Amino acid sequence: MMADKNKTLRLLKTARGQLDGILKMVEEDRYCIDISQQVMATEALLNRVNREILTAHLRGCVQQAATAEDRGEKVEELIATLDKILK
Amino acid sequence: MMADKNKTLRLLKTARGQLDGILKMVEEDRYCIDISQQVMATEALLNRVNREILTAHLRGCVQQAATAEDRGEKVEELIATLDKILK
Amino acid sequence: MMADKNKTLRLLKTARGQLDGILKMVEEDRYCIDISQQVMATEALLNRVNREILTAHLRGCVQQAATAEDRGEKVEELIATLDKILK
Amino acid sequence: MMADKNKTLRLLKTARGQLDGILKMVEEDRYCIDISQQVMATEALLNRVNREILTAHLRGCVQQAATAEDRGEKVEELIATLDKILK
Repeated sequence: MMADKNKTLRLLKTARGQLDGILKMVEEDRYCIDISQQVMATEALLNRVNREILTAHLRGCVQQAATAEDRGEKVEELIATLDKILK
Repeated sequence: MMADKNKTLRLLKTARGQLDGILKMVEEDRYCIDISQQVMATEALLNRVNREILTAHLRGCVQQAATAEDRGEKVEELIATLDKILK
Repeated sequence: MMADKNKTLRLLKTARGQLDGILKMVEEDRYCIDISQQVMATEALLNRVNREILTAHLRGCVQQAATAEDRGEKVEELIATLDKILK
Repeated sequence: MMADKNKTLRLLKTARGQLDGILKMVEEDRYCIDISQQVMATEALLNRVNREILTAHLRGCVQQAATAEDRGEKVEELIATLDKILK
């Protein structure tokens, strides 16, 4: 993985902490909108992690792909990823 | 919370398990695209949880809001939530 | 429609003007990324129009729904709309 | 532009026709939710156009970038595009 490992781990652990908090809110039957906001905050955090990973991947793996064949493989992976993002 | 508690807890625990898996992938320096796909799968799961929570909220809290004042409050909360979703 | 008519018409006409511009760019075989950015700008504009329309709908039609039956109908419409947005 | 020109023009002209229809709906004060659905349908169409353009761009311009410098430029453009999409 090309992204900054510590930063990625830190963001993911924050997301996991938020998820534990959401589980608690559901157990305690908290108000729907309050839970929804926490879920969206965790989604936004994961979205940021994905952006960091794909950015580092583009600058690393894609840009340094040595052969035409390797480049072709990387491009097809990006197309599949883009399809998921833009679906 | 109006959504089905067990179903919501089950979806959230699945998301948490996926998050633990992603942390492990990052620790093990796995391939960027594989990690990205897992992050997007977890985002999709949280998106589903949010949908369940907001749907039950609409059918419960919003629809059964007794007074005009209560309805007004619920509507403003929905507008703020929609702003986040559509930003 | 409850949203400000002039404002909504103005935003939509701007989007249509952008769309004409994009058609021209494609005819002229302009660079992919330049076209992509214009398409995303037009999507963002339509997203804003949708937000204005749904916000005014919530404050108008939903909040002022007189009968329980009417409220129920409005809630089901919102759920269907939310499903599309959050899919 | 690398994407199929006729297909792209056809999709864009369909979107433009939908936009004209939405303008008419607003002029005629049609129901909010009906207008919202048409706006979202047009957004989905533009989203598909963007996907076609970026897919062809990846397979064309990015994959065939001859020099390291050219590849670097293409990668930075993709990162900026991804930032907009994932914002």
